[in-house]
Amino acid sequence: MNDYKHPLADAEFVLNELVKFDELCAAAGLEDVNTELASVILTEAGKLGTGVLAPLNRTGDEVHPVIVDNGVQETKGFSDAYQAYVEGGWATLTAAEEFGGQNLPNVLGTAVNEVWQTSNLSFALCPLLSQGAIESISHHGSDELKKHFLPKLVSGEWTGTMNLTEAGAGTDLAAVSTKAVPNGDHYLITGQKIFITWGDHQMTDNVIHLVLARLPGAPAGVKGISLFIVPKFLLDENGNPADRNDVYAVSLEHKMGIHGSPTCVMSFGDNGGAVGYLVGEEHNGLAYMFTMMNHARQGVGLQGLGVSEAAYQLAVQFAKDRIQGTKKDGSRYPIIRFADVRRMLMQMKSGTEAMRALCLVAAAEADRENTARQELLTPIVKGWVTEFAQELTSLGIQIHGGMGFIEETGAAQYYRDARILPIYEGTTAVQALDLVGRKTLMNGGESLQSLLDEMAADISAFEALGGDFTLAAQQCRTSLDNGIAARQWLLDTKADRNASASACVNFMMLFGFLCGGWLMAKSAVQAQAKLAAGEGDPKFLQAKLISARFYCEHMMPRTQSLLASVIAGGESIMALDEELF
Amino acid sequence: MNDYKHPLADAEFVLNELVKFDELCAAAGLEDVNTELASVILTEAGKLGTGVLAPLNRTGDEVHPVIVDNGVQETKGFSDAYQAYVEGGWATLTAAEEFGGQNLPNVLGTAVNEVWQTSNLSFALCPLLSQGAIESISHHGSDELKKHFLPKLVSGEWTGTMNLTEAGAGTDLAAVSTKAVPNGDHYLITGQKIFITWGDHQMTDNVIHLVLARLPGAPAGVKGISLFIVPKFLLDENGNPADRNDVYAVSLEHKMGIHGSPTCVMSFGDNGGAVGYLVGEEHNGLAYMFTMMNHARQGVGLQGLGVSEAAYQLAVQFAKDRIQGTKKDGSRYPIIRFADVRRMLMQMKSGTEAMRALCLVAAAEADRENTARQELLTPIVKGWVTEFAQELTSLGIQIHGGMGFIEETGAAQYYRDARILPIYEGTTAVQALDLVGRKTLMNGGESLQSLLDEMAADISAFEALGGDFTLAAQQCRTSLDNGIAARQWLLDTKADRNASASACVNFMMLFGFLCGGWLMAKSAVQAQAKLAAGEGDPKFLQAKLISARFYCEHMMPRTQSLLASVIAGGESIMALDEELF
Repeated sequence: MNDYKHPLADAEFVLNELVKFDELCAAAGLEDVNTELASVILTEAGKLGTGVLAPLNRTGDEVHPVIVDNGVQETKGFSDAYQAYVEGGWATLTAAEEFGGQNLPNVLGTAVNEVWQTSNLSFALCPLLSQGAIESISHHGSDELKKHFLPKLVSGEWTGTMNLTEAGAGTDLAAVSTKAVPNGDHYLITGQKIFITWGDHQMTDNVIHLVLARLPGAPAGVKGISLFIVPKFLLDENGNPADRNDVYAVSLEHKMGIHGSPTCVMSFGDNGGAVGYLVGEEHNGLAYMFTMMNHARQGVGLQGLGVSEAAYQLAVQFAKDRIQGTKKDGSRYPIIRFADVRRMLMQMKSGTEAMRALCLVAAAEADRENTARQELLTPIVKGWVTEFAQELTSLGIQIHGGMGFIEETGAAQYYRDARILPIYEGTTAVQALDLVGRKTLMNGGESLQSLLDEMAADISAFEALGGDFTLAAQQCRTSLDNGIAARQWLLDTKADRNASASACVNFMMLFGFLCGGWLMAKSAVQAQAKLAAGEGDPKFLQAKLISARFYCEHMMPRTQSLLASVIAGGESIMALDEELF
Repeated sequence: MNDYKHPLADAEFVLNELVKFDELCAAAGLEDVNTELASVILTEAGKLGTGVLAPLNRTGDEVHPVIVDNGVQETKGFSDAYQAYVEGGWATLTAAEEFGGQNLPNVLGTAVNEVWQTSNLSFALCPLLSQGAIESISHHGSDELKKHFLPKLVSGEWTGTMNLTEAGAGTDLAAVSTKAVPNGDHYLITGQKIFITWGDHQMTDNVIHLVLARLPGAPAGVKGISLFIVPKFLLDENGNPADRNDVYAVSLEHKMGIHGSPTCVMSFGDNGGAVGYLVGEEHNGLAYMFTMMNHARQGVGLQGLGVSEAAYQLAVQFAKDRIQGTKKDGSRYPIIRFADVRRMLMQMKSGTEAMRALCLVAAAEADRENTARQELLTPIVKGWVTEFAQELTSLGIQIHGGMGFIEETGAAQYYRDARILPIYEGTTAVQALDLVGRKTLMNGGESLQSLLDEMAADISAFEALGGDFTLAAQQCRTSLDNGIAARQWLLDTKADRNASASACVNFMMLFGFLCGGWLMAKSAVQAQAKLAAGEGDPKFLQAKLISARFYCEHMMPRTQSLLASVIAGGESIMALDEELF
């Protein structure tokens, strides 16, 4: 049923034509890394995805992890798949060589991660969180902590988790109440964390928890939070897991989706205190956590792409197989010839392509050390891609008709799995507030202006294509103007916090659709140039032209209504008395 | 957790101010029926919904119906609830007095049905389908069939089902292959039907199936389908259930939602043939089925309202209870004061109000015997309301943050339940094709023009409010112009079937948002007039003004992007070769 195949040609196109991967590698001094190597790596990743991870995707949905005597028992088959992942060296791709990593570009790691996220989102969450832990320890941990924990996190022998949320502290991390008390060379941690993804399992010898907690006398609010490493098993003198630490998964959540990934309530210190090691300085934990979160946020955006791509592939297969049309001569044909099915498939196809383009272009900004652009794009990647994924996975169900509502078909799982994406690692509103506040207002809109300038040049090139692309280019230009107007409105009304906070999600979605369209337009220009030069696969390039045209004609007009909502401001949003809801 | 309360004040407002219920009743010669009676009935319905049906909603989600020796065993508690429903006379509201009905207006029946759909959608599907069966037999059955089957269907002692879909015949009913062979005064039916909602249960003594099947030598396609009544138990000479008929539920579907309602595979004639009685004339079954479907389609639209209203009520409660904000002085406050939460709640509130207005106004057209308008609005009610319900129930989850993804919270159930609504009783595309084809092109756009003319007058009155409503009225006017332009485009391009078929869903959604805005604008005009006259509850009326303003400012701009997509036409939708998907 689920015959996942990695869309290698499109990933290569984005890497080569939009990211300019070879130039990026050369600029980073990575002499042996180039598009050929990238293709080999992606091809191998695709095999693991198709052969090992995708077949487990339904299994994880149906057979949930459970709590047994020695902790959480993950779904059968996941451990073998994880060993295959580790043995293939997949955990080490982008980590530093010093700790056993391969030092490959972040953008290539991201392109590979798409494979895991598409073939088995629940599984892929585990390495995603490990990568966040690695980032955090690499940047902020002492040499000793790095020495003890990084090599086995990098190899994948151990996994990592993020312990932020508490029952009373979700979006508002200021309310974190988990305690850490100094005790010799370490700290004793007590408290309870919820929503801890892959908080425990039997796939590895150890699980390394990164935990936000408060020291005695710490300032109130977010400025009094420190970050600790709390391993499931304490290390002996040789650095091997030895004594069980005082941290346990005490229950699992009953969720709507991502059933294959255990979501744990973690209890720290029920028997005196969990041993923890301070990362970096006291009271600076939130900043360190953001290192993890920023990485994880782009990763969750990538999950939005992955689940949409999976839904698309399933829907295409169904639309080709499902016979429901009858011609006048009595002969029958499949529903892919129905215009509205075609509309939905085009939206899914062009939408996932736009997502892929944005995810990889944003990931490459880390390799280019273009920090301002990377930080600007992160909330758009996380916010827009995951919101758009709701719509695309829903279309995947709709194309299946009644069968889409039946669980065995698989379309429903993608829809259910997708629904967590705009929530975890910072909700859509958190992303949008980050975009309008820290990423735009705080620099006077400069980051956004530089992006808009780059778009303007690319859209001019798109306009020059003319012909079939006339309307598409007009929609691009109008959308760019909408982006410019939205930015200006934000700068003009910055004194009115209710207005910008009310408008932030629509503002973010506007820039999401605009970024997607910009990159699709740029893709069309590149595709046309390659066709004219007789390079590349003409069928793929023709398809890219049609996909770009569809996206610009049918998706970009949304920027118009989003702008209208933005500039309507917050008055009618905030006017109603609380009691009248 | 789920503390459902029927929004009586809003239902009364729509009935009084938009539907003009008293005038409607007077015109229909219903002397004893008026708004006071309606309020009494709605109040009583609300009690049954809150006290009996809502508490079973989660139960049905968690404890699914199963197949036992004597058929389908529904979830515990549902049978008692159904008896309470029957004993309260709720099944009889709108049926003809001749068969034990109360002959109340359709619009009042619809307002009452909202209560059932909101408090327990899975439960409410059962009477919804019975009502369809009643409609069908009333209009097309012989006097004998009416005499045998209608009184107990009307009273609710028996329930009814619709048996259309087969494994190879979903949207394409031309492919129906179930057979009916004449056998004396009846027919013998053999075949298998799928997706039969409440196809069997133990709540009543009998279940009356309405079944599409083909007679020997019937023409191919939809012109060769006949409609039959196939009771679960054959009737003895006194009209009581006696011998078991040869129709059985052979399995239940494993669905994403509406778990409380058994979705059956029904097998007819495994032991020689199920006894069936022809309804109306041979080969005319499809037309009769449409009598049922048109009623059911407005009913499914109403389900979209119901599930959105339920999601809204749950989200409001959470937003008021959930403390996550911290002021500078350290005091805490609930998330309902966050601007983006407010935006989502306003969208849910104004969206459900617009849905309610449209559902009731459309239902009243049946009472007014305004057939053209009723038929025009049916696909909009079904298509737009159910599609919009996806978004509103999703916002319900988003407001809950991480808790929204946890099943115990209840928000996820509404989202899962809602997902079937744009599929069954004709998918969104089927509704949209009906709107552009039979309801618009076939009458040269006359029905739509008459609706647009009525809107124009009401929007002029809204414009006259001025002040705070200036922008809202502008958006209304622009949306009306968008509707006018869409209609004109459709008439101009009617020769291009791909274009209209490609555009149909966006066309339908445009008119949905426009209809919603028109009725919200009209509501604002009425509310303002009542405030000026010192009539009514000023808090409710003020809230209605704000809700209308929000809807017009923030939802109606969507008509702009929908129009752009419509007039972009079908070229880029249809251009890609099938093999390139």
